[in-house]
Amino acid sequence: MIVPRLIERKRDGERLEASEIRELVLAYAAGQIPDYQIAALLMAIYFNGLDRGEMNALMEAMLESGRRLDFSGLPLPRIDKHSTGGVGDKTSLILAPLISSCGVAVPMMSGRGLGHTGGTLDKLESIPGFRTALSLAEAEKQVARIGCAMLSQTDEIVPADRKIYALRDATATVEVIPLIAASIMSKKISESLTGLVLDIKRGSGSFLPHLEDELELARAMIDLGARHGCPVVALLTAMDRPLGEACGNALEVVEAIDVLRGAGPRDLIDVTGALGVEMLILATVATTPDGAREMMRDAVASGRALTKLEEIIAAQGGDPRVARDPARLPRAPHQAAHAARRGGVVQSVDPRAIGYGVISLGGGRTNMEDTIDPSVGFVVTAKPGARVEKGQKLATIHARSREGLELGKSILEEAIIIGDDGAEALPLVSHRVTGRGVEDFIKAGR
Amino acid sequence: MIVPRLIERKRDGERLEASEIRELVLAYAAGQIPDYQIAALLMAIYFNGLDRGEMNALMEAMLESGRRLDFSGLPLPRIDKHSTGGVGDKTSLILAPLISSCGVAVPMMSGRGLGHTGGTLDKLESIPGFRTALSLAEAEKQVARIGCAMLSQTDEIVPADRKIYALRDATATVEVIPLIAASIMSKKISESLTGLVLDIKRGSGSFLPHLEDELELARAMIDLGARHGCPVVALLTAMDRPLGEACGNALEVVEAIDVLRGAGPRDLIDVTGALGVEMLILATVATTPDGAREMMRDAVASGRALTKLEEIIAAQGGDPRVARDPARLPRAPHQAAHAARRGGVVQSVDPRAIGYGVISLGGGRTNMEDTIDPSVGFVVTAKPGARVEKGQKLATIHARSREGLELGKSILEEAIIIGDDGAEALPLVSHRVTGRGVEDFIKAGR
Repeated sequence: MIVPRLIERKRDGERLEASEIRELVLAYAAGQIPDYQIAALLMAIYFNGLDRGEMNALMEAMLESGRRLDFSGLPLPRIDKHSTGGVGDKTSLILAPLISSCGVAVPMMSGRGLGHTGGTLDKLESIPGFRTALSLAEAEKQVARIGCAMLSQTDEIVPADRKIYALRDATATVEVIPLIAASIMSKKISESLTGLVLDIKRGSGSFLPHLEDELELARAMIDLGARHGCPVVALLTAMDRPLGEACGNALEVVEAIDVLRGAGPRDLIDVTGALGVEMLILATVATTPDGAREMMRDAVASGRALTKLEEIIAAQGGDPRVARDPARLPRAPHQAAHAARRGGVVQSVDPRAIGYGVISLGGGRTNMEDTIDPSVGFVVTAKPGARVEKGQKLATIHARSREGLELGKSILEEAIIIGDDGAEALPLVSHRVTGRGVEDFIKAGR
Repeated sequence: MIVPRLIERKRDGERLEASEIRELVLAYAAGQIPDYQIAALLMAIYFNGLDRGEMNALMEAMLESGRRLDFSGLPLPRIDKHSTGGVGDKTSLILAPLISSCGVAVPMMSGRGLGHTGGTLDKLESIPGFRTALSLAEAEKQVARIGCAMLSQTDEIVPADRKIYALRDATATVEVIPLIAASIMSKKISESLTGLVLDIKRGSGSFLPHLEDELELARAMIDLGARHGCPVVALLTAMDRPLGEACGNALEVVEAIDVLRGAGPRDLIDVTGALGVEMLILATVATTPDGAREMMRDAVASGRALTKLEEIIAAQGGDPRVARDPARLPRAPHQAAHAARRGGVVQSVDPRAIGYGVISLGGGRTNMEDTIDPSVGFVVTAKPGARVEKGQKLATIHARSREGLELGKSILEEAIIIGDDGAEALPLVSHRVTGRGVEDFIKAGR
């Protein structure tokens, strides 16, 4: 294998063979190819892409670099949900206990905050004692025992993906659909799932700005899943404003608990419900959307979903009393309401400004060494399209200091735009993509 | 400076500021930026290019990373000649002594064989004892004393270029016109020249396959020279067949000496003469092409050119007797004639096949650690367009062994094509490019 010749071929728009990609990835994971050659190759891929066969070869090589979860003795369907990342998106915190309380195994591997978006692991770690760095053996045992484990990617799982991902992050080669698809799916296939639901975010707060890219990402991941016996259903959901009201780690855990108790903001309930329906139907424990909704309502009303959250927290070393007493979560010493400076209609709530705002309050990282203050953030009750009076409360700021409150106010002042007329916003769930094609809910009037 | 953000901007087709390029290059030279980030940037530049300002900033930063030759006390014009690389191209070996014997200082920094092409340093080192790794101080002193030094790029001169060049070689980012131009010109400007003649090779044996690219490279280097007080004249010359007859290190030294003695192949004399005319006129020691040719004829006829070669060899530790007794050069133990299998007209002599053939005989490198056998190679007397009889000698093979002779025969069999009709060949010198524009010698009937 002459690496510069392979780079040159991809640079010139040629296809690489599956065997060449496999050799490259495994040699790179083994430290036999220098970072700089893979960096040049990644940039060539940014410009010339990978076809479906090359993408699959990449994913298979990344899988081969590590181990998979082994559920051979488990008689349950195994379903995970993955989101492309957003602001205020705490659906994983709700769906993991909710769906596993419906008799479905949920081995859920999550990430940390990236860019302006939050990360499920960071949110979970706001629960005192909660440990996400499970070994594969621990995760396997926990799923067999209580039906759910919420874990981070360890060195055991697709190490080649880990190494390539870190390199992409440092070389401006993150936003490449086949690389995103292969990276996500390598982790998901390593969970030995029987089905996967994707939540692909749309709008100004998402990583991919164009609908066509989002559909292409969905199709690419559906294709990879189909090649490995893992049916995939993708929903395209709105990220032109934060999802729900809470943005910030502990604040989002509180809001997730609210939903598991039958309360919580409507938009969050609707998106979580739509994703849950797909999970339960993929798991074949429900056969219709109505039946799936009924199961979830029952799991919440009976308290089983909340009990499952307690079990998960307890199994992973956290304080399970949090589930019934969220006041045990870290709480910021300073709070203040943010009020509308004028009356009118909320035009937009900018998710990037809010997401980066949480980071500037200390609730996220600007580099991997930063430690996070889990207590800070915003609870933004204002939604695009809402009519507000001058002086009406739009949000609450949670900060470490009075200066933090001031900073929070200036962030919200920029992020929440009030105007005179009606506002445009994306539909909460706009498209459903499966191996059979795309359903456009808007055109279909749903 | 956030490096991924700079990579991203170039990736997206934006311009980088001169200050940003300077900071990047100097930090990279100082080891403060990892190779992989520069590799990704180089690949982004492959796709999106550099404009003239960015290219100049790159060159200036590379210059700033090292030292320049200091000729402040030298009252002579200082002219170098640079070729983009070819097969059988020994014009540097002729021009250095010839032009410096005409009262022009020639500080000549050369390279080694690259790909299928030969390198002046490798050819010089076939002279027993010849040392090319001169320090800057040695080179300055030698030029002041005898008017010429033939040296390699050392760690003192544009170290950033050295580092970036090695990275380009390993990451398939060599063939990028602004990077080629900045790399060459950084070395040439560091020689503190008063003028530079470029020999840009055309045809199947050159690195750039299209005339438009060759003209663009010429214009780019002319532009860089103009910004730094170094007028540049470029000639586009034929490399659709080897230049002259000898291909192989010591064999080419012999042929260069032939020319310095007033003999040698016609095409080599013509190309060397055309380049020499430009050097002498740029140096302002001649004012017309005829005057320049007269000076060169006189330097050869009087023996001054050959004496200058002796001085250079002696100054750099070599055996000066080689100049009058080329039999002192290494000579391969096996020689054999290669004859035409059929009568007809020579259609083509493939320079790549001949160049790689010299390498397979042991006369070049496949990686930087290889040692070279200076004695091996070919003397190809057949020229495209020549009518030959069956059995007529086309070339001589010089090899280390009988197996080498067989290999050489099979290489020549592939490289020299004989057909029925007249052959097409590029004109020896087709274009002349200066700051004032392009002269097309063919259209002009020259």
